[in-house]
Amino acid sequence: MNTYTTPNPSRGPSEHAIRDQVVIAATEHFGHYGYEKTTVSDLAKAIGFSKAYIYKFFGSKQAIGEVICTNRLNMIMEIVNSAVAESPTASEKIRQLLKALTESGSDLFFHDRRLYDIAAVAARDKWPSAAIHEERIKQLIENIIVEGRASGEFERKTPLDEATLAIFLLMKPYISPVQLQYNLESAGSAAVLLSALILRSLSP
Amino acid sequence: MNTYTTPNPSRGPSEHAIRDQVVIAATEHFGHYGYEKTTVSDLAKAIGFSKAYIYKFFGSKQAIGEVICTNRLNMIMEIVNSAVAESPTASEKIRQLLKALTESGSDLFFHDRRLYDIAAVAARDKWPSAAIHEERIKQLIENIIVEGRASGEFERKTPLDEATLAIFLLMKPYISPVQLQYNLESAGSAAVLLSALILRSLSP
Repeated sequence: MNTYTTPNPSRGPSEHAIRDQVVIAATEHFGHYGYEKTTVSDLAKAIGFSKAYIYKFFGSKQAIGEVICTNRLNMIMEIVNSAVAESPTASEKIRQLLKALTESGSDLFFHDRRLYDIAAVAARDKWPSAAIHEERIKQLIENIIVEGRASGEFERKTPLDEATLAIFLLMKPYISPVQLQYNLESAGSAAVLLSALILRSLSP
Repeated sequence: MNTYTTPNPSRGPSEHAIRDQVVIAATEHFGHYGYEKTTVSDLAKAIGFSKAYIYKFFGSKQAIGEVICTNRLNMIMEIVNSAVAESPTASEKIRQLLKALTESGSDLFFHDRRLYDIAAVAARDKWPSAAIHEERIKQLIENIIVEGRASGEFERKTPLDEATLAIFLLMKPYISPVQLQYNLESAGSAAVLLSALILRSLSP
């Protein structure tokens, strides 16, 4: 099962396969030449399809970019979820959450392929993929706080929504790939120091 | 006394005055047309000086940009310092520090004039002005923690350098104008929520 494919696989298997092919080739192409600089014509030439043929499957370059962005963010979410699931305590979940976010974000948008400028456009133009990703992280933070309050690891005075939102805001520069670019050098030590600060703020 | 002028006023009053005139005109011009897009020739034409004349006073466009950036960061630092100085307790100083940083950063790089792209280039090319500004803020944070520990407001278990650096890292997206651009919308409420989180982390 491939979970990193198009969010609209309803047109039958062969169209689905072609959409996948376009997305895979576009990920490669944008990673090399940049999203902003590449036109659908460039992309069509590189894949060996006509421009009109690509437009049959994707309404715009942004539609292709959105699928790539969603795929990357889903990969980050999967890494983050399993890092959190494997942690025995709520405190360790907080540490692993921030560590997994920074590491997978760096890998998937900077080291693996240069997909940074898709993230930049997604942030600038407020693509839904980025907003959905942020909501998921927020929910995950809330779940960890609830767990830590139940186990007695965390204080219970601060309203749950306030504690959740503050931790989310603290983590946001490491959640958003476009901001992560400014924090790449110090991201490793920042994840350790900031999760320790969060845990001090949560201590009963 | 004008504290927001060139850092090199050693060439006598009339050269000093001309340098100031170039910086004032360049701040206006870059604010309208953007730093990246403007050449020294454009600037010279706008001011009514020859390009060669400007080069007599500034070695490069970056040298002019650095003075503008330094001036803006000095203005932020002055606003921040007086907000902190007026606060009666260390806890209130933490709140006012983050509030003053976000408000003055938004005003001076975004609303007042569109000087954002000078900040972007400064961050990308690691201009000294940005590093000096960060060191000053870090020192200010340390001073506030020391004060709060002495008055019994803050805990004393966490090593001072660790507590300082973690709070600095938390505030960094609001200190760096290039990152602040992504947080402008939520900066007001973020300053409140994040300073409350910092204070929970510092509570004895």
